Amino acid sequence: MNGDSFSAGEQIVSPAYIRQGREARRGHEQLIRVLLEKGKCPQDAWDESTIELFLHELAVMDSNNFLGNCGVGEREGRVACGMVSRRHYRLIHGIGRSGDISAVQPKAAGSSLLNKLTNSVVLDILRTAGVRTATGCFVVPMATGMSLTLCFLTLRHKRPKAKYILWPRIDQKSCFKSMITAGFEPVVIENVLEGDELRTDLNAVKSRILELGAENILCVHSTTSCFAPRVPDRLEGLAEICAKYDIPHIVNNAYGVQSSKCMHLIQQGARRGRIDAFVQSLDKNFMVPVGGAVVAGFDDSFLEEISKMYPGRASASPSLDVLITLLSLGASGYKNLLTERKASIYHACKELFAYLANELKTLAAKHNERLLDTPQNPISLAMSLKNMNDKGTSAITQLGSMLFTRQVSGARVVPLGTSQTVSGHVFKGFMSHSNDYPCAYLNAASAIGIKKQDIDLFIKRLDKCLRQCRKEKPVEVVASGAPPTTDEEITELTKDLTASLHVEAEDLD
Amino acid sequence: MNGDSFSAGEQIVSPAYIRQGREARRGHEQLIRVLLEKGKCPQDAWDESTIELFLHELAVMDSNNFLGNCGVGEREGRVACGMVSRRHYRLIHGIGRSGDISAVQPKAAGSSLLNKLTNSVVLDILRTAGVRTATGCFVVPMATGMSLTLCFLTLRHKRPKAKYILWPRIDQKSCFKSMITAGFEPVVIENVLEGDELRTDLNAVKSRILELGAENILCVHSTTSCFAPRVPDRLEGLAEICAKYDIPHIVNNAYGVQSSKCMHLIQQGARRGRIDAFVQSLDKNFMVPVGGAVVAGFDDSFLEEISKMYPGRASASPSLDVLITLLSLGASGYKNLLTERKASIYHACKELFAYLANELKTLAAKHNERLLDTPQNPISLAMSLKNMNDKGTSAITQLGSMLFTRQVSGARVVPLGTSQTVSGHVFKGFMSHSNDYPCAYLNAASAIGIKKQDIDLFIKRLDKCLRQCRKEKPVEVVASGAPPTTDEEITELTKDLTASLHVEAEDLD
Amino acid sequence: MNGDSFSAGEQIVSPAYIRQGREARRGHEQLIRVLLEKGKCPQDAWDESTIELFLHELAVMDSNNFLGNCGVGEREGRVACGMVSRRHYRLIHGIGRSGDISAVQPKAAGSSLLNKLTNSVVLDILRTAGVRTATGCFVVPMATGMSLTLCFLTLRHKRPKAKYILWPRIDQKSCFKSMITAGFEPVVIENVLEGDELRTDLNAVKSRILELGAENILCVHSTTSCFAPRVPDRLEGLAEICAKYDIPHIVNNAYGVQSSKCMHLIQQGARRGRIDAFVQSLDKNFMVPVGGAVVAGFDDSFLEEISKMYPGRASASPSLDVLITLLSLGASGYKNLLTERKASIYHACKELFAYLANELKTLAAKHNERLLDTPQNPISLAMSLKNMNDKGTSAITQLGSMLFTRQVSGARVVPLGTSQTVSGHVFKGFMSHSNDYPCAYLNAASAIGIKKQDIDLFIKRLDKCLRQCRKEKPVEVVASGAPPTTDEEITELTKDLTASLHVEAEDLD
Amino acid sequence: MNGDSFSAGEQIVSPAYIRQGREARRGHEQLIRVLLEKGKCPQDAWDESTIELFLHELAVMDSNNFLGNCGVGEREGRVACGMVSRRHYRLIHGIGRSGDISAVQPKAAGSSLLNKLTNSVVLDILRTAGVRTATGCFVVPMATGMSLTLCFLTLRHKRPKAKYILWPRIDQKSCFKSMITAGFEPVVIENVLEGDELRTDLNAVKSRILELGAENILCVHSTTSCFAPRVPDRLEGLAEICAKYDIPHIVNNAYGVQSSKCMHLIQQGARRGRIDAFVQSLDKNFMVPVGGAVVAGFDDSFLEEISKMYPGRASASPSLDVLITLLSLGASGYKNLLTERKASIYHACKELFAYLANELKTLAAKHNERLLDTPQNPISLAMSLKNMNDKGTSAITQLGSMLFTRQVSGARVVPLGTSQTVSGHVFKGFMSHSNDYPCAYLNAASAIGIKKQDIDLFIKRLDKCLRQCRKEKPVEVVASGAPPTTDEEITELTKDLTASLHVEAEDLD
Repeated sequence: MNGDSFSAGEQIVSPAYIRQGREARRGHEQLIRVLLEKGKCPQDAWDESTIELFLHELAVMDSNNFLGNCGVGEREGRVACGMVSRRHYRLIHGIGRSGDISAVQPKAAGSSLLNKLTNSVVLDILRTAGVRTATGCFVVPMATGMSLTLCFLTLRHKRPKAKYILWPRIDQKSCFKSMITAGFEPVVIENVLEGDELRTDLNAVKSRILELGAENILCVHSTTSCFAPRVPDRLEGLAEICAKYDIPHIVNNAYGVQSSKCMHLIQQGARRGRIDAFVQSLDKNFMVPVGGAVVAGFDDSFLEEISKMYPGRASASPSLDVLITLLSLGASGYKNLLTERKASIYHACKELFAYLANELKTLAAKHNERLLDTPQNPISLAMSLKNMNDKGTSAITQLGSMLFTRQVSGARVVPLGTSQTVSGHVFKGFMSHSNDYPCAYLNAASAIGIKKQDIDLFIKRLDKCLRQCRKEKPVEVVASGAPPTTDEEITELTKDLTASLHVEAEDLD
Repeated sequence: MNGDSFSAGEQIVSPAYIRQGREARRGHEQLIRVLLEKGKCPQDAWDESTIELFLHELAVMDSNNFLGNCGVGEREGRVACGMVSRRHYRLIHGIGRSGDISAVQPKAAGSSLLNKLTNSVVLDILRTAGVRTATGCFVVPMATGMSLTLCFLTLRHKRPKAKYILWPRIDQKSCFKSMITAGFEPVVIENVLEGDELRTDLNAVKSRILELGAENILCVHSTTSCFAPRVPDRLEGLAEICAKYDIPHIVNNAYGVQSSKCMHLIQQGARRGRIDAFVQSLDKNFMVPVGGAVVAGFDDSFLEEISKMYPGRASASPSLDVLITLLSLGASGYKNLLTERKASIYHACKELFAYLANELKTLAAKHNERLLDTPQNPISLAMSLKNMNDKGTSAITQLGSMLFTRQVSGARVVPLGTSQTVSGHVFKGFMSHSNDYPCAYLNAASAIGIKKQDIDLFIKRLDKCLRQCRKEKPVEVVASGAPPTTDEEITELTKDLTASLHVEAEDLD
Repeated sequence: MNGDSFSAGEQIVSPAYIRQGREARRGHEQLIRVLLEKGKCPQDAWDESTIELFLHELAVMDSNNFLGNCGVGEREGRVACGMVSRRHYRLIHGIGRSGDISAVQPKAAGSSLLNKLTNSVVLDILRTAGVRTATGCFVVPMATGMSLTLCFLTLRHKRPKAKYILWPRIDQKSCFKSMITAGFEPVVIENVLEGDELRTDLNAVKSRILELGAENILCVHSTTSCFAPRVPDRLEGLAEICAKYDIPHIVNNAYGVQSSKCMHLIQQGARRGRIDAFVQSLDKNFMVPVGGAVVAGFDDSFLEEISKMYPGRASASPSLDVLITLLSLGASGYKNLLTERKASIYHACKELFAYLANELKTLAAKHNERLLDTPQNPISLAMSLKNMNDKGTSAITQLGSMLFTRQVSGARVVPLGTSQTVSGHVFKGFMSHSNDYPCAYLNAASAIGIKKQDIDLFIKRLDKCLRQCRKEKPVEVVASGAPPTTDEEITELTKDLTASLHVEAEDLD
Repeated sequence: MNGDSFSAGEQIVSPAYIRQGREARRGHEQLIRVLLEKGKCPQDAWDESTIELFLHELAVMDSNNFLGNCGVGEREGRVACGMVSRRHYRLIHGIGRSGDISAVQPKAAGSSLLNKLTNSVVLDILRTAGVRTATGCFVVPMATGMSLTLCFLTLRHKRPKAKYILWPRIDQKSCFKSMITAGFEPVVIENVLEGDELRTDLNAVKSRILELGAENILCVHSTTSCFAPRVPDRLEGLAEICAKYDIPHIVNNAYGVQSSKCMHLIQQGARRGRIDAFVQSLDKNFMVPVGGAVVAGFDDSFLEEISKMYPGRASASPSLDVLITLLSLGASGYKNLLTERKASIYHACKELFAYLANELKTLAAKHNERLLDTPQNPISLAMSLKNMNDKGTSAITQLGSMLFTRQVSGARVVPLGTSQTVSGHVFKGFMSHSNDYPCAYLNAASAIGIKKQDIDLFIKRLDKCLRQCRKEKPVEVVASGAPPTTDEEITELTKDLTASLHVEAEDLD
């Protein structure tokens, strides 16, 4: 409502009340103005009514919502179904233009604002989360793997001769495929075992560079967040090597925004050496639906080159989700989520990562196993499954099936000696990031949004499964409500679930 | 509600009424069952309550909505913000898995069903729209251009030696960039002028194949839907050539699903020669928000290879949009939308394409111009701007600005003699698909969802602008409500708008 | 967004586009301004985005949505559940104040505006629907019957001696109860049979006045819309009598707004004699959920007295529904709904009332029955059931059950000779508005929102049921999907349904 | 989805996953089944997805949502506007029937279930909140005042001779009007001052009964929750008197459900004497929008008589709100809300009532005033304004205005010596429940849903206002952002606000 409307309102309802209402409206407007002026995540959470008002305001600026618009093009933001229109808050034109996913659209001022603001707010969060010198970022409506592919495709134009990507091994399929899809040959750098941890072999990296020739190498592709007992790569060392040999360096920071340790590693790497871009998942770090990633870096011209590689417009859906989420949390709310999650086991804090570690340690002892000692991994934990391993791989995959059917999601069993071929490359000991890790184990993670109740239920159910496995009884593998009636059915289900768990384990996103 | 709930209900409310209600519920269930069993777009529209019930049912099958789930992984479908959760109907896990965008997720049976069903329903529509022998398709949450890139990246693995893509010229940036991004060198085949139409030069295609060597050519990249006076490529001829020389053939069918002519061309091409895949925009053909495309083809194993190239999970948002839309329209509703739009000018029908053509023809005559004669183009029309051209390019771009500020969207002015460099390649006469088209012109299209009122308003406003231009008066370039106050402001705005219109014209999506 | 926000936006996105967006926003604001200034139903429909924006604007003016509010009262508009808050668009304070349901609330400027505007817009519609001289109205969140009670309670304070209400008989329970609840003694005026029609007996009214004494009569309580063969009361005659004897006159116009005839009768009554208030249902006339009514009249001071009789605040829900509905239809849309519905059978028009009449006439002839000749009833029709009557009342109620279980709703069978006691008063021939109507019959109505398909399905199913009844076969009385298995079950269901149909028939709202 | 649908799903997605999903669905179904079977508020909160699923299930049982329904009645649940339909979850038919607001509708099994369940769940809550022997209750879509009127109208039929209602004075307008509207003469029983508290004068009640004759008295109308320094009526004493003289007893328990003390009083009254019905507000006790009340009692036949007095159907909106709210909180969540609020100042607890009391006590001392000693009032507090009173009534109303414009809502200033006429009855000392309370004061309440931050802001702002008043400076009465510019404007606003505050103070709902 504009001034005239308020005046008209004063003819209907007491002017004093209308004035009070108008005053109140200014409160919401202030928040919107500050957001637009600063481009930062507001410190305090916005309530839903402010967020909706803001999205409404953006939508009416897009041509598909102009009351007097006439459209004679082939893409006019027309929507056939009201349900669809509403769920997108009538923001239909997506983001970007044919030339650049970060570009502004003439037909859609509101969507363009949304896009720019989202990138700006997310950058603010990345900086406060630890990468203080990041200069830019943009949200892409593609998973982390495809976003890495886009980075590699961009580098191709800068390094036309290059054929190889150096890649400290991490056993997640989409990581590996991101390089294959881009048309490059991954050079796998095996990890070294230090205590229980699997760590980056910097010497191997260096020797492969010398061997292959720096100019033939597109980039080093390193990883922060990963399943224990692998730990984040030695980013500082890798960044120094990249700087020395003038090789680009792309970091897969999949779910690392939630970890101050991962973010610190990136900050240090960029300070001491070379990092060209770091890519992270939207859903894993910001608790939004699957399907978006953030490409960030320290050099705006390189980021622009990447954004210009995306041919065509793109879905605004992931941008919308992350903007709504960050406004609804506020910077302080997001920070609280991070704080709840983390804290080191070594400081006996009450936060959930420490809690999970302690509970798992106690349970392991009870079953004559142990929590692997992986202090460098800030998110994922691993508990040995030595005793079970003696009974063979199938016992271990059966444990996985049992957990799955008991509605434990995300726990991941890793048997010894499995081998898998991904896009033609054979990985020995697949899932364990290593050709021959000393023992089988089970992973559990304390990721953003986890609740104490998740941990308690998990420990309880795991305990029960382990006890049942020990008894070597015929295993019940289905959820209680729908018992399978024949042996064949049980076998098939187990096989099916087992297969699924293998694949599950390899996933990056 | 299950049987027990209904029984309990009968204790509260008269059993006869509960039974009637339960009976009624079966009506909705029937629709859902048939959809799941047939995998086809229902003939009649579903009402919102059935669609919502169905989405609800899908959502409760995903692990993030299990009442007793405990999650200890790094990706658990947690959502921080209720607004976000609701707008996705609580379907959070996206589609696909690390290895394959069409694969099933163990954690998300509901989302997996959604994904499979969407692909199946869209295939049904593609078939009934004219490509009857298509064997498969899948929705990707990427624009048409990026989806074409994915196709090219897949072909790379099959044709490792290939460096070139043969491409009958079409002046839309993302088309061109889709090849550049994939790392290939586009070989531009200039169009030939036949009457007013610009058509595929089949001889040039053949001679370039012989010249470059078939094995060095990744594929032919042809186009159906396009701005007049260019018309759809001679797909049959191209397909025959591809078959003869064993060269893959990828068709950009951007907004061609809505045109029975474009669909027929693809069907004929596939029948008479070779088409490996055809790619189309979701938003332009199905009236959903920007950001998705459908990759379709005639060989399931090739489609599978493409879907396996996408590394990681992906957003379910475009799939959800198109499924909701098609259920809410029904096959009959979608067909009606297509029928309203099309019909040839040459049959004097009352449909909107014919109406637009007639109106534009009349207007052209009034202003001493003419409607270009492009009977092969089923969607886009062009009206000459000869008189204006005599006054120079700026007069023409000014017309574009005037239309823009009068809330005419999608109209596109094409001056003579503009030259533009895209990713290093210089295009003479850019925007006109030709180095030297005989005259400047203006495009308008009758695309799906257009209303008679769009056309009437457009004709009225265009008439006014043309009259104003002729008077050579100082041009008023802003919308009436916000008059610019200084000359500088006017100039800046015009410049700004003009620049934007140039870029606008190049867009594919 | 205010001016500062737009300026900030221009730093992010091209100023020309922001300006265009801002301009577009003004379009929505204009509509809102005009609504507030004129207080009339807009001629053209508003789209959802304008309606939502408007409701949003209203909500932020209520104190429960003030960002800096602190509440220390016992009623602060706090809402425990987000779902509830959202479905009311965060308008929580209801309407009215303790003293007056039409009064303004200091805590809730937005809700107060909503209330005033709704009343103003509804008045506009009542006037254009035919009662041009109505001076005021207000929406109450109570059914028609309870609203009539409120009118009678108000009159009590003006006529403390009065004990009787004169009431031309109409066999609908809530009509009768509205007088009983208010504590008065209804004096039933039996209708006279003229042809097939049952009409007001003006002489009987006059003689009862003389007999009882005008000062002992609270008011005359007349009815417009009703089931055929009763027709609307002779309002002109009644109004003249009321004027002559200085007796108030309250009209139950339950679903008469949709009928130009009913509205005309009220207009004429008020012009020629006396009408103090006329009350109509919101749901039946405006296609909103059940639960609201409009009290309207020709004397603002009397209307104010009524509104001041409601002790306490009231739900804004019915007001919100009708306002949203009328904005979403526009005056023209509402008018179209009325036009579709009506038109007299005697003019052979194509509208739906005529269509229903013709179809029913044909069907009646086929089954050797006839459509009763009730030209004065503009909404409801009656078809004789003479042949069936010969088989006894149970055959007729069975027909009702059969229709009910076949998902025909609203059809109403009226057997002869039923007698019912309502609040102590015995009605002979209950449901037929007459002690001894000549034949049994079946009612069907063409009310606002009816579709041709409703009529076609009804005729088809009725035909089938009549044929089945004639065969005197054992009657199948349940919906096809859940056949009863025992005789007892069938009997019980029939009884149950039959009982329900009796009651159904008596309903006013 | 039924079994067939799941089977079809297993053809599309791995059967193991579908089975897991189906299992998960059973979790939601269980909750629904238990609700239907027990009719009690579930102990634990339901999540939104279960609530929505449940409402969906109810809606499809109503005839307006039958896919094959044809409607030929005048009330078919048709809805013109999608926004309206959605916000009511497609439950359109309201509750009740013409004869009875608690009755079942043949056309609407789902809405009928909703109605019955809501009443049953609310009864469960009333019992656990303290009135353990209540036997029934029903929700009405009317405010507390109008609901009281309905009770009185019902009693009229049982006591045709009665003219008077005995009413221990409480200065809230709708309380008083509820009796006037029903057509009775309130007999005001003045309260007695005991310490700072105003309490029921039982002797006066008795003597008025003897004086007027028990048979001429319709009922005693007592009150629990009220503004301090009045305290809840001596219900036990009143109930005993009513039993002795065979006089009905209706209790206004407006916002007393939230107070275990008020509920205990009712329980004791019913046990020791006679209470026919007690009426409470939905919004004030259950944090839903304004507009509903609950009528409860200990004798089902009397409750049924009341429910049968409401002529016609009624809005389901309040029932829907309260059901959604209670399901979303669970019994435990509702209990937590109550616990947070209450706790006596005399036990130095940390709950909010005690906190408010302490803060107010401290502030009072600082300003040389005192917190009135009203231990019997469990919700409302009063702080003396003696010093200000010396400056005259206008100073006190000015304080009210100042608080209002500073967005303090619900605080209520009570000057001495105001006199007001309500429906012809003159109340001396209006607002203070007494002809001559010793001092002016200010009220604040700790009602359900209050937050610590409300209290802190209130105390801070009140402190500021009191300091400003003491300085006798010209008072700034408008919110900071819109300063009035002329003296006239200030005066008018102050007058306006002051007037509003007077009225505010009288409100019951």
